[in-house]
Amino acid sequence: MAAMTDVPLHALEDVATRLRIYSIRATTAAGSGHASSSASAADLVAAIFFDAMRFDPREPRAPRGDRFVLSKGHAAPLLYAAWAEAGLLKPHDLLTLRQLDSDLEGHPTPRLPFVDVATGSLGHGLSVGVGLALGARMEGIDQRVYVLLGDGEMAEGSVWEAAQMAGHLHLDTLIGVVDVNRQGQTGPTMLGHDVRGYQKRFAAFGWRVLVIDGNDMRQVVPALRCARRAGGAPTAIVARTLKGKGIEGVEDAPGWHGKALPKDHAERAVAALESRLHAVPPPKIHRPRARLGTPVAAAPTPATAMNVPELPKMGGSVATREAYGDSLVRLGARDPRVVVLDAEVSNSTFAERFRFAFPDRYVEGYIAEQNMVGVAAGLAARGHVPFASSFACFLSRAFDQLRMAGISRSNVKLSGSHAGVSIGEDGPSQMGLEDLAMFRAIPECVVLYPSDAVSTDACVRLAAERRGMVYIRTTRPKTPVIYGPDETFAVGGLKVIRLSEGDRLTIVAAGITLHEALAAHAELTKAGIAVRVIDLYCVKPVDGDALRRAAEETGNTLLTVEDHYAEGGLGDAVLESVGAGGIAVHKLAVREIPRSGPPQGVLGRYGIDRRRIVARVRELLRA
Amino acid sequence: MAAMTDVPLHALEDVATRLRIYSIRATTAAGSGHASSSASAADLVAAIFFDAMRFDPREPRAPRGDRFVLSKGHAAPLLYAAWAEAGLLKPHDLLTLRQLDSDLEGHPTPRLPFVDVATGSLGHGLSVGVGLALGARMEGIDQRVYVLLGDGEMAEGSVWEAAQMAGHLHLDTLIGVVDVNRQGQTGPTMLGHDVRGYQKRFAAFGWRVLVIDGNDMRQVVPALRCARRAGGAPTAIVARTLKGKGIEGVEDAPGWHGKALPKDHAERAVAALESRLHAVPPPKIHRPRARLGTPVAAAPTPATAMNVPELPKMGGSVATREAYGDSLVRLGARDPRVVVLDAEVSNSTFAERFRFAFPDRYVEGYIAEQNMVGVAAGLAARGHVPFASSFACFLSRAFDQLRMAGISRSNVKLSGSHAGVSIGEDGPSQMGLEDLAMFRAIPECVVLYPSDAVSTDACVRLAAERRGMVYIRTTRPKTPVIYGPDETFAVGGLKVIRLSEGDRLTIVAAGITLHEALAAHAELTKAGIAVRVIDLYCVKPVDGDALRRAAEETGNTLLTVEDHYAEGGLGDAVLESVGAGGIAVHKLAVREIPRSGPPQGVLGRYGIDRRRIVARVRELLRA
Repeated sequence: MAAMTDVPLHALEDVATRLRIYSIRATTAAGSGHASSSASAADLVAAIFFDAMRFDPREPRAPRGDRFVLSKGHAAPLLYAAWAEAGLLKPHDLLTLRQLDSDLEGHPTPRLPFVDVATGSLGHGLSVGVGLALGARMEGIDQRVYVLLGDGEMAEGSVWEAAQMAGHLHLDTLIGVVDVNRQGQTGPTMLGHDVRGYQKRFAAFGWRVLVIDGNDMRQVVPALRCARRAGGAPTAIVARTLKGKGIEGVEDAPGWHGKALPKDHAERAVAALESRLHAVPPPKIHRPRARLGTPVAAAPTPATAMNVPELPKMGGSVATREAYGDSLVRLGARDPRVVVLDAEVSNSTFAERFRFAFPDRYVEGYIAEQNMVGVAAGLAARGHVPFASSFACFLSRAFDQLRMAGISRSNVKLSGSHAGVSIGEDGPSQMGLEDLAMFRAIPECVVLYPSDAVSTDACVRLAAERRGMVYIRTTRPKTPVIYGPDETFAVGGLKVIRLSEGDRLTIVAAGITLHEALAAHAELTKAGIAVRVIDLYCVKPVDGDALRRAAEETGNTLLTVEDHYAEGGLGDAVLESVGAGGIAVHKLAVREIPRSGPPQGVLGRYGIDRRRIVARVRELLRA
Repeated sequence: MAAMTDVPLHALEDVATRLRIYSIRATTAAGSGHASSSASAADLVAAIFFDAMRFDPREPRAPRGDRFVLSKGHAAPLLYAAWAEAGLLKPHDLLTLRQLDSDLEGHPTPRLPFVDVATGSLGHGLSVGVGLALGARMEGIDQRVYVLLGDGEMAEGSVWEAAQMAGHLHLDTLIGVVDVNRQGQTGPTMLGHDVRGYQKRFAAFGWRVLVIDGNDMRQVVPALRCARRAGGAPTAIVARTLKGKGIEGVEDAPGWHGKALPKDHAERAVAALESRLHAVPPPKIHRPRARLGTPVAAAPTPATAMNVPELPKMGGSVATREAYGDSLVRLGARDPRVVVLDAEVSNSTFAERFRFAFPDRYVEGYIAEQNMVGVAAGLAARGHVPFASSFACFLSRAFDQLRMAGISRSNVKLSGSHAGVSIGEDGPSQMGLEDLAMFRAIPECVVLYPSDAVSTDACVRLAAERRGMVYIRTTRPKTPVIYGPDETFAVGGLKVIRLSEGDRLTIVAAGITLHEALAAHAELTKAGIAVRVIDLYCVKPVDGDALRRAAEETGNTLLTVEDHYAEGGLGDAVLESVGAGGIAVHKLAVREIPRSGPPQGVLGRYGIDRRRIVARVRELLRA
């Protein structure tokens, strides 16, 4: 570190020491928490915040400020300590760690202004970092993103999905710092202190790699300074550290993962740390050169000469997945915040329509769904409105990322195509039959399931307008357009589409089964049996009042029909909303592992086609 | 290929040509399917089956036979063709591909005797291969496992999780063959034909790597022969190929992914291929040296001097997660088929009790849940009974693998610890609040949720006895032991644990909320309010008859209480089973994103503690 005198060096060392002291005090006050995992990375974080990053600590989410992602979320005490040292939190507040009304939770969440995406489930942060860096690149903003990873989480495949995308895109504004403290929760990591092993892996994934002693400020600072200089590739700093570094009796000792020091031990450790302070004030945080206030998501404006597809007309026939693609193009032409991601199936999900129209706002996620969702969360944290799609069943791959995006209240939109057995010949591995259960179990997530092209367009618009996670389920086969262009749709809405005064039962369906229900309705009408039909295009939240009203008017009986397993889907959504009222809800759903076969054949085989609906209605009304 | 004359070479080339012909004919007959993805790998598969592998084609699951896993499951026509060429299927049957009553589904499932685990969701096969190879190693059987991967799926992080474990364990009986045909579904893969890129990655993960032209039998055969020779590391064969190789107008052309050739095109292509046949009969398949009939899962017997923990006594207090660990030890002492896996949290899930007792039957999965579940499925396919554990929330990481294990009817057992908000201070990222929804949505999966140590032991035994997937949910805090040692439990059972004649309502709970319900019951009894309490320890399948009976006897009113989100959990399971009967089901569940805090505090804050139960019962009975 030729250019650096001892004064700034000592100042940074003092910051690191104070971060350790804060981490010990907070966890000991809480009686739990990860002091040892904070201590190993204290030098790295001190140098990242007080030497490497350019940001305004009063405005952590300013578009032009550098970003920091704590992928090893259990080192939350260290993160909180850094923001206290930077002046955004008061040191005394750190002692509220893990209390019920404190925003300083056990693992970081965006209740705090400096947290972009919740972490704590390992292996997510690098994808989020890719999204943040990619977003800045799309906006033409020169910004760095620092991601601090633990060595334990390097075992998560999602980290390598993110690494490969960063390498592939030459994302040289992304800096991954790996805290190789060698110790996991229960024992040594696979690679231990084999820092060359990590080096080889990152290099093989297209990264520039620097290997350092992460507890030696004389190596930490120059590595971070080098990493700032864009070199056509993302930079990994593989930092050999000791868990519990600097804490008496804890440093490099096993058995201290996730444990707070007892009070007397903490006092001794703090005293020892204090005695090492050079008593130099912290260095001034570097501000970004450009002004901070530029509006977010200044994505490229759409091509004016572009061919925006028209809304299909009633009576036509369009697959909702195709309508999804066209709807994205219509939306994208109006809203420059919209970006689209897909997991290498954009010709199936029809996200390719957007890809062709707005190539600069399309991100090819390849076959790596976890990373795709993490990148979307990173983009959303910069103010973009990401729509990410794949086959509905393959989104299950990213359930943990989706769960964390839910906790983050991330503004991500997902679309799963090829829902249900109606995809036909490709067989059960390609059939989304659990996606409604998955998305319904994410708090605050809106779940939309349109049945035709017009309602699909409305759902895409509703998704963009809504702040928060929205899921749109689409269908493979073509379905008739049943709504006119002026029909209105709302989150929490439904449509009563067949109604007469003598209705004896209400069929509730959505998507492909709505069309089966309509065919059944026609047949029942011919036979003189009056039933009501509801299009439950919004599966969460459900319009319980309207369902109860329909039930009251139709013999207190509902029959749900869904191309989904019986658990957690549309039927359960209906039950959940009317179950307290003593209304009888009967359910047609897929109840076994389906086989390959022609779409109409499998709908029949698994008991959710028009014939089965007619038969079930007759049974129920006879009873 | 010095040792090889032209005759076997031509014979293998003829096999490859016939595999291409079969693939074309089957997909054209079906009108859909992946002819081009089959053609690129035809030479590789021909040589694997007819030169490399030692197996008896009449007994594809024999313990001593080599195994083949088609990770790129969409090349199913090629797999079926290979087994037809090997004599297990009739060539004519191949034409039933993708028909509703044919076992030759669009993607392979274990309905077929030669498929160990269903594939078709990409990136799973290598983990399954690790499990198969590891199982054979545990059994002391010298066997090779061949996994054919597509290059597109190399983008899935789960592949690198499997690669790292195979490298870490020096699993030199595992051979991964990558069909680098360069083309994905929508366009080129990230690495294209950069075979050196794949080579570097595998090498960085501890593999021996051979790079070949995968469409040249003179390179394919020696590479596979070399790979058979164990060298202390798993072997990757990175094979440069062309998609659609050998098919007129399709070879290396874009736009042919997942498409069948039209009939006339197919006829021309088949005629051209037939003209290339040397007309040599296929080589004889190599049989394994050892006899095939040895029983599976001859895992090491337990140490006789081992300390088997006793079942806790009524009145004590034990966390069900700790009871899970002890139950595994008791089970493992009796049943040598039992193996245990954990994702680097075995001191939290208490799987470490088994790890210490039977280190040879414990597999450390590190922080890589997807691979852990895939490995478990591979072990199960060899007759082992794997129990895999992590925090309940982190199992969401493996939803796709779990879904596929469900389709495979795999005999895997999962345990998720730290369920619900009752974990307290660690916060929402560590709280399993969607695991019941996830496992309920897997067809045929049994979901168990014990509330004390005795019922946990019973659940572990039930899981081992049951053929198929079972999930056991455990709790972090200690809970009282409420059952005696002679209590019996069953899949599909429940326990009425508080009952009196004047009961006006039934509370249905499980796990931690059962104890809250019991405390509420005591308070209500004191106040002269009689309610029934049911322990719904089996959440799927639910004993609907018993629930209906209880409802009939208690004012037709049920109140469910669960430490899970309101969607897809215990309340929905109850609704699903009684919802058709017009019984009023009221639900207490977590309905927002929770915060960190002390366990009893968060239970109260999120409305599922004893006080809230008492209040809700009073409200309901007043109404």
